[in-house]
Amino acid sequence: MMKKYNFSAGPCILPQEVFQEASQAILDFNNSGLSILEISHRSADFVSVMEEARNLSLKLLGLENKGYKALFLQGGASMQFLMTAYNLLEKKAAYLNTGTWATKAIKEAKFFGEVVEVASSKDKNFNYIPKNYKVPTDADYFHCTSNNTIFGTQMKEFSSVAIPLVCDMSSDIFSREMDFSKFDMIYAGAQKNMGPAGTTLVIIKEDILGKVSREIPSMLNYKTHIEKDSMFNTPAVYAVYVSLLTMRWMDRKGGVKAMEELNNKKAALLYSEIDRNELFKGYAEKEDRSTMNATFNLTDESLKDRFDELWKAEGINGLNGHRSVGGYRASMYNALPPHSVTTLVEVMQELERKA
Amino acid sequence: MMKKYNFSAGPCILPQEVFQEASQAILDFNNSGLSILEISHRSADFVSVMEEARNLSLKLLGLENKGYKALFLQGGASMQFLMTAYNLLEKKAAYLNTGTWATKAIKEAKFFGEVVEVASSKDKNFNYIPKNYKVPTDADYFHCTSNNTIFGTQMKEFSSVAIPLVCDMSSDIFSREMDFSKFDMIYAGAQKNMGPAGTTLVIIKEDILGKVSREIPSMLNYKTHIEKDSMFNTPAVYAVYVSLLTMRWMDRKGGVKAMEELNNKKAALLYSEIDRNELFKGYAEKEDRSTMNATFNLTDESLKDRFDELWKAEGINGLNGHRSVGGYRASMYNALPPHSVTTLVEVMQELERKA
Ligand SMILES: Cc1ncc(COP(=O)(O)O)c(C=O)c1O
Ligand SMILES: Cc1ncc(COP(=O)(O)O)c(C=O)c1O
Ligand SMILES: [Mg+2]
Ligand SMILES: [Mg+2]
Ligand SMILES: [Mg+2]
Ligand SMILES: [Mg+2]
Repeated sequence: MMKKYNFSAGPCILPQEVFQEASQAILDFNNSGLSILEISHRSADFVSVMEEARNLSLKLLGLENKGYKALFLQGGASMQFLMTAYNLLEKKAAYLNTGTWATKAIKEAKFFGEVVEVASSKDKNFNYIPKNYKVPTDADYFHCTSNNTIFGTQMKEFSSVAIPLVCDMSSDIFSREMDFSKFDMIYAGAQKNMGPAGTTLVIIKEDILGKVSREIPSMLNYKTHIEKDSMFNTPAVYAVYVSLLTMRWMDRKGGVKAMEELNNKKAALLYSEIDRNELFKGYAEKEDRSTMNATFNLTDESLKDRFDELWKAEGINGLNGHRSVGGYRASMYNALPPHSVTTLVEVMQELERKA
Repeated sequence: MMKKYNFSAGPCILPQEVFQEASQAILDFNNSGLSILEISHRSADFVSVMEEARNLSLKLLGLENKGYKALFLQGGASMQFLMTAYNLLEKKAAYLNTGTWATKAIKEAKFFGEVVEVASSKDKNFNYIPKNYKVPTDADYFHCTSNNTIFGTQMKEFSSVAIPLVCDMSSDIFSREMDFSKFDMIYAGAQKNMGPAGTTLVIIKEDILGKVSREIPSMLNYKTHIEKDSMFNTPAVYAVYVSLLTMRWMDRKGGVKAMEELNNKKAALLYSEIDRNELFKGYAEKEDRSTMNATFNLTDESLKDRFDELWKAEGINGLNGHRSVGGYRASMYNALPPHSVTTLVEVMQELERKA
């Protein structure tokens, strides 16, 4: 079997040792003689998985004992587009529009009240992060997207706002150090840095809840899930377990600080090749480049078939850009080994030699 | 490692050969050199998993080419309590209350309109299925729960109604033959007969949709998911895959007909021991007994410690009854081998000899 270099945008590569443990637990979980897939979610073994996962997510972000609750919910980040507004939007909310996902979040919020788009980078097909916008102080909350998976831009600064700050961190959670206590709510679909598809991490400061006048159906109410420690109904047992394995791996490796160092190195390596090599150009504005998703194009489209052939022959996977951008996207999540980036850079250089 | 006899109520036992394949796919899926956990949900390999799973679910129920769509959604059956009402309840809906889950479904429906409880077995702590109730013909739909996981009762007949018939089949889907085309909508959390926790099968007749006047947020709108073939957002990739493996297993074994034969045999074996053995009595009315979840109590509570010790020593797992019923519950889902039931019966007989 050929070695694969997996640059998939999500679901994406997870650490090899996580795959090993995850595979073993399907046959025998914790030496119980039972598969992790066949145990009750109310069993002591799984209750402790859920608890450790909730605690570890807070620990990795430095948010322990600061009034936050961590939940693992179903529905993906897309369900959070809806739930944030259902739970927090009384009259008006402020949104920063930095891409496809932010646009979808705005669409769902409009079901529940007025949405002020404080700024948008749609004018340049989201290849930059708007700056110097003003957030209305009378909005119920301000929502932003830390990393734009599709366009390869990433927010480097989060201005302090006087209203609750809500952030979709689906594609760069656990990738860098930051004062996460700036945020009143953070959510992230697991399927990038945290684990497999099927669970969504929601971290929420309890004191922002209970301020809307509408009634909220049980399953959509954060309070329901907080009261039941994320076990109101059957959770996505296996997705939570593999997320825990992945968070343990991050913790062992030195946490978010160590992840950031590695991510910066990988990103620097690839972006410097994109800039140096005349056959390639980056898609995003330099100052807004994402360390997670590098988007780039060929300067000469006629080289497309040759380049595609080269990287595929090398065992590279998942490099095609999203249809709304075209070109290429190299996703370099936490678990991607630096060697994978080196391999991609070599292929880019090989194209240069052969072109 | 001691052999385990897993009577868990859900998540629950799945076929051993499914565990083998499911474990292998974590290391290498379809000889791709990649884990099933790291591939894109838009990859050809996974798109074909989703398509096969949707088609096979309809095939197993005899619902192909009859105007039904099958979806695999996140959120559990509890999310369906909400979504059915959001999508179908304009003014008034009729519900049959046969237990905890039906009660929760009713609670969520009340957010959206009037709910007529056509009958309830609450008067006897849900140990029977009400009969001879009248369903109002001017209700938007009639909702029932085919099998009551907690109380061990099961509907044997579904009267034809003139309005759409919606059924929560979470705990007995794929367990018996029936004319499923009676139903306009069927939903089931995967974690009993279909697969692991984390995905929910929703089968819906398209012509019942689009009749409510309210606007429905994207993620809660069945039409969104139908239009996108259940891939509007990232699905629970692995839970859908393992559900497919389990459905393929059922199909190989002879489908729902073969499952029913086996389930009837297992249930007959256990219920006849419950009736014969003077130390035990069944909880549910005989005519309403579930073939999936057999609920029973000791006639002499002082034998509890001795019985618990015996079955635990034998490797039996998950036999404690739900707190709202007490006593014992033996869940005998499709994948439970008949030998497990024989073992339980032997333990019951051992108690009798020793008591
Ligand atoms: C930043 C961001 N937000 C939201 C989503 C949607 O996530 P889901 O598919 O889990 O609903 C994605 C998916 O890639 C994403 O990258
Ligand atoms: C009949 C029935 N309906 C609904 C549910 C709730 O399912 P979930 O936990 O997936 O929301 C269950 C759970 O056991 C059930 O047995
Ligand atoms: Mg985006
Ligand atoms: Mg260049
Ligand atoms: Mg019940
Ligand atoms: Mg008896």
